[in-house]
Amino acid sequence: MQKSDILLCDLDGAGILRLTLNDVGRRNALSEAMLAELGRVFREAGNDPAVRVIILAANGPAFCAGHDLKEMTAGRANPDRGRAYFTTVMALCSGVMQSIVTCPKPVIAEVTGIATAAGCQLVASCDLAVAAETAQFSTPGVHIGLFCSTPMVALSRNVAGKHAMELLLTGDMIPAPRAAEMGLINHAVSPEDLQAATMAMARKIASKSSMTLATGKRAFYAQREMTLSDAYAYASAVMVDNMLAHDAQEGIGAFIEKRAPQWQDA
Amino acid sequence: MQKSDILLCDLDGAGILRLTLNDVGRRNALSEAMLAELGRVFREAGNDPAVRVIILAANGPAFCAGHDLKEMTAGRANPDRGRAYFTTVMALCSGVMQSIVTCPKPVIAEVTGIATAAGCQLVASCDLAVAAETAQFSTPGVHIGLFCSTPMVALSRNVAGKHAMELLLTGDMIPAPRAAEMGLINHAVSPEDLQAATMAMARKIASKSSMTLATGKRAFYAQREMTLSDAYAYASAVMVDNMLAHDAQEGIGAFIEKRAPQWQDA
Amino acid sequence: MQKSDILLCDLDGAGILRLTLNDVGRRNALSEAMLAELGRVFREAGNDPAVRVIILAANGPAFCAGHDLKEMTAGRANPDRGRAYFTTVMALCSGVMQSIVTCPKPVIAEVTGIATAAGCQLVASCDLAVAAETAQFSTPGVHIGLFCSTPMVALSRNVAGKHAMELLLTGDMIPAPRAAEMGLINHAVSPEDLQAATMAMARKIASKSSMTLATGKRAFYAQREMTLSDAYAYASAVMVDNMLAHDAQEGIGAFIEKRAPQWQDA
Repeated sequence: MQKSDILLCDLDGAGILRLTLNDVGRRNALSEAMLAELGRVFREAGNDPAVRVIILAANGPAFCAGHDLKEMTAGRANPDRGRAYFTTVMALCSGVMQSIVTCPKPVIAEVTGIATAAGCQLVASCDLAVAAETAQFSTPGVHIGLFCSTPMVALSRNVAGKHAMELLLTGDMIPAPRAAEMGLINHAVSPEDLQAATMAMARKIASKSSMTLATGKRAFYAQREMTLSDAYAYASAVMVDNMLAHDAQEGIGAFIEKRAPQWQDA
Repeated sequence: MQKSDILLCDLDGAGILRLTLNDVGRRNALSEAMLAELGRVFREAGNDPAVRVIILAANGPAFCAGHDLKEMTAGRANPDRGRAYFTTVMALCSGVMQSIVTCPKPVIAEVTGIATAAGCQLVASCDLAVAAETAQFSTPGVHIGLFCSTPMVALSRNVAGKHAMELLLTGDMIPAPRAAEMGLINHAVSPEDLQAATMAMARKIASKSSMTLATGKRAFYAQREMTLSDAYAYASAVMVDNMLAHDAQEGIGAFIEKRAPQWQDA
Repeated sequence: MQKSDILLCDLDGAGILRLTLNDVGRRNALSEAMLAELGRVFREAGNDPAVRVIILAANGPAFCAGHDLKEMTAGRANPDRGRAYFTTVMALCSGVMQSIVTCPKPVIAEVTGIATAAGCQLVASCDLAVAAETAQFSTPGVHIGLFCSTPMVALSRNVAGKHAMELLLTGDMIPAPRAAEMGLINHAVSPEDLQAATMAMARKIASKSSMTLATGKRAFYAQREMTLSDAYAYASAVMVDNMLAHDAQEGIGAFIEKRAPQWQDA
């Protein structure tokens, strides 16, 4: 992969790709440059057979502070007051969020510090999330007259309606343990245990068949938007194809014979 | 606003409209008169620029006991056994519930006592809800042979399926702390702290731009019914328009310049 | 009802049908024979006026271990490598799961031991579930290269997205108290209290009008897949018909007159 200073990429021998937001001076804001990097990396990692699981982490006290407001404000100087520019940035950002969802590799957010606005959306868009107990989350757009309408898309697909509304209407910060109760993250752990916790989760998932994980992740988000009967028809067809694939034959055989499976892509 | 004895309206200087159900003798039942008042008030408050946030509270030990069963029963004397009358009342009631959802001002339920059947639906239909720890909730229609099918619409959009089903199939009363765990309400607080808690929440929200709140609330309920990609396309367009509105320009400017924002409608 | 050794059926005087998975040697796997039995019994019980509530329990340490992998594997010997056979089994299994949802009688899972893969789906498909604190749940298909795609349909309609994903991507076992927090089950109780707890719930529900329960259960799953306004239009029509039915007239009359109601079908 191409190197970048603002988004560090480290792939270990187990197939765990560790992405680290590293624009600490801008609190890892989703600048155009950062969004472009994230989009590129999720696309490349999705197609790279060496990558089995992705961890999205961050350097510095902020996990991610959302959009880069100075960059956005500069766009107002354009003759159209920024409409075309804002449209481009929003499309870019929504594209990055959806590229996490459509990426065939599971993505785990490892949240150290504060995750606000589109930074909170980034966490909500990952398949899994573990946070330090000291981490905090908010959708504070109401404070500046700009409702967190796109973060809301991801947030409201993770937590109960009234919980989402409280975050959105008050802009209040919530601590990680509360975020865990709400379902926004999977677990809140002590800061010193955070990396070990996400690595344990990542290693466990990296030991599975990548074909199986990709099949299941795609099916998860697809069936969620269907009626119950459509979802069953669709998921049944997915199961039949999965049964006929090498890795299910191997995995079931290994289980019956009480030996470790050898995945095709491992 | 027109005065009413069964629904008290008090608007304070901060733009907080306090509505108080005040038909204590009928346990604040949603009689035709009460439904008509609620419908009128939510419509008027939605259009009144002086109203920034709405609190829905109640006098007496019952927050709201649901439909007025004596009134409903009287309808049976009609030649059609009440079909036309029941149809009218259900349309009126469902209209009121949806007028809370479509009202551009955030609505907070402040629940002191018991909220049952359509009273529970009223709480579920508000954007936010805070209750006294002594408050209780149920959908007890099964006890009288009349399943809480319309309350279920709001309830099942707030809590997990099995939680909704337990309430609906057993008719059991649940205490406020359990309702908070389920996501039916935001918080359960001590009875003496209840009004202070909802007022603190209301004041916080009232300090935001009404334009921004209205934009976000409408978008919240709209995007929730869309697929992920449609929701992102829609919310991105909402964000662009929001960026171009006065209050976002002012709010972002004030944030960058570290001063308090001056909303257009404040 | 026809007798079966692998699925025991006991109907008590209160209309509570207790189904007990009894293929202990195969850990109550959903073999073709077991699926056929379950399908037949839910169909018959749905049409039997003597049955008011159904409890789905199990003998042995496993509630249900999911599909019968040896039976599935044998299908691979067919000329089409099992495609037709797997398609048939998946359709049969998805049909059984949906027959629980469409059964007009409320269904309560009583979970003693482990419920894995399609066994976890069975619990998720019931209207209500109570488990022993020692019970455990997982969707472990990733361990054998076969993602739990059909169990996911039921699971993801019960719990938050990140919770579902954690179960699906890691295959980890979760204890019953955690399953209760997530909303996968209603309650986790001590093993010695389990049967008393489900029976108390079943007796409570069995005392209601079967017509009312059937009306409400059908409406619950139907309205859940509609937009808010469609759901209200539909549920309002359901309420009007329910009001005009004998049992609502009787139930409301009994309530006003402070006497016990006499349901038409009791």
